[in-house]
Amino acid sequence: MDIREINGAAGIGGVRTAAVVGSGLIGTSVALALRRRGVVTYLHDADPGASAAAANRGAGILGLPPSAVDLTVVAVPPCSTAAVVAECQAKGLSRVYTDVAGVKSGPVREFERLGGDLGAYVAGHPMAGSERSGPRGASADLFDGRVWVLTPDARTRPAALRTVAGFVTGLGARPVVMTPAEHDRIVSRTSHVPHLISAILAARLDGAGEEVLRLCGAGIRDTTRVAAGNAELWTDILRANADEVATELSEIAADLLTAVRALHGDPEDLTALLERGNAGRAALTGAPVRLAEAVAR
Amino acid sequence: MDIREINGAAGIGGVRTAAVVGSGLIGTSVALALRRRGVVTYLHDADPGASAAAANRGAGILGLPPSAVDLTVVAVPPCSTAAVVAECQAKGLSRVYTDVAGVKSGPVREFERLGGDLGAYVAGHPMAGSERSGPRGASADLFDGRVWVLTPDARTRPAALRTVAGFVTGLGARPVVMTPAEHDRIVSRTSHVPHLISAILAARLDGAGEEVLRLCGAGIRDTTRVAAGNAELWTDILRANADEVATELSEIAADLLTAVRALHGDPEDLTALLERGNAGRAALTGAPVRLAEAVAR
Repeated sequence: MDIREINGAAGIGGVRTAAVVGSGLIGTSVALALRRRGVVTYLHDADPGASAAAANRGAGILGLPPSAVDLTVVAVPPCSTAAVVAECQAKGLSRVYTDVAGVKSGPVREFERLGGDLGAYVAGHPMAGSERSGPRGASADLFDGRVWVLTPDARTRPAALRTVAGFVTGLGARPVVMTPAEHDRIVSRTSHVPHLISAILAARLDGAGEEVLRLCGAGIRDTTRVAAGNAELWTDILRANADEVATELSEIAADLLTAVRALHGDPEDLTALLERGNAGRAALTGAPVRLAEAVAR
Repeated sequence: MDIREINGAAGIGGVRTAAVVGSGLIGTSVALALRRRGVVTYLHDADPGASAAAANRGAGILGLPPSAVDLTVVAVPPCSTAAVVAECQAKGLSRVYTDVAGVKSGPVREFERLGGDLGAYVAGHPMAGSERSGPRGASADLFDGRVWVLTPDARTRPAALRTVAGFVTGLGARPVVMTPAEHDRIVSRTSHVPHLISAILAARLDGAGEEVLRLCGAGIRDTTRVAAGNAELWTDILRANADEVATELSEIAADLLTAVRALHGDPEDLTALLERGNAGRAALTGAPVRLAEAVAR
């Protein structure tokens, strides 16, 4: 589906008032971006210190809205997302609801189980983040040019999808529609497993002495950057997408086994794996695979 | 050992003439750095096209030196290093020899087996590189401020160690002395295994469609940067350090198994692993571990 067909409205897509529930990195960034576009934004967090920190950064008005707003954005960890969206709906916080959780199938199923109204809820996930966390790491331009996945289904009301797509476009992001299952399968590969493995590589440096740390170059610095991410939040993300993450890890484990065998076995198996790495990296950066350059022998 | 004690000479440490054998990224960068400091530098590569490309970049004079120079730097892949150093010694190319291979134990043992003179050879490894390869990726300032490991042993003549330490310091790098075994154990963790795993993550994107690639954010881009490295060279490096790489991989595999179990099991096991990742990353960047920031619930 081409999102331009469902996003007739310009700018922030008919959203003039909003509630942002959850004042972590993503919630506060959403609120800052909404405020910058003149949207009246209310901030709520179970931890009053977090929402106060977001308000202090100019992200909006502290507290739940006094009457129904146009859109509620729920920005809490995946394990709480369904319950919080359902609770906001039960309170009649707004006409339309969305969320930003990095896992979609489980929360949407749970929301349905809780009796939430799927017609007014468009689940979403902005492909943006930071190894920083909390309101102090937030930024109004976090979503500029980023892909923002939306996972409506047959029950979603077209008006709700238009509102959420307009909100996403208005924040400078690019809405991409897919099913929750597609989303979860893809991000296990592009985000969840890379994060977990980056953490495992970084964990090998826990307690390492200066004699090890001084031999750390640019390679391991890049490879472990995301390992600084919030451990509790990532525990929640990985467990919420446990089946897909486990499937992806089993394929990674097969590649690792190939590599271990090739360390003492057929070098061509190792070269073939590293060349697949070259090709994957080239696909990612959009560059053609470099022609192998002569290496002195 | 404090290297300042063995490096009495200033500047380029008594090296006025040098031969650089191997015109890949590292060899050409060494030659460019030597030339910048006024050292007369000769360039040789088994592939005449590579040494010609290095000479065209101003890295030195094409061909082997007409008479013995002060220092020969062998910059070829690990599997060829011992044989090439021994061959250069047999030709009497210089007074002192060093190399830049990323693995030390195997090449040094092989050099001894070939009957090379260990008194005049100080094995080395600059902790610098690039995902680019070949003379065209070379840079005269590649070694600025980098650690450069030297692995002399009891048979190394002090004058040879002084010459090589002076050369390393003269190139702007920081010489660090350790045994070949220490070096290989540490770099398996800080470089070789991170490279292999980065390649395996990138290989999962080989043949991936646009629907996958557009969900790739900054995390996987950083995690897979080094996967662009030369596949044949890295096959050689990993196999030359096969035992240490296999040992490190077995510990990584144990962490992966913990993670897989914790996906459906005890969340605290996963959080503990991710927190060790936080701590390792903090050790690497020298930053204190961030206080956990409130996450909205």
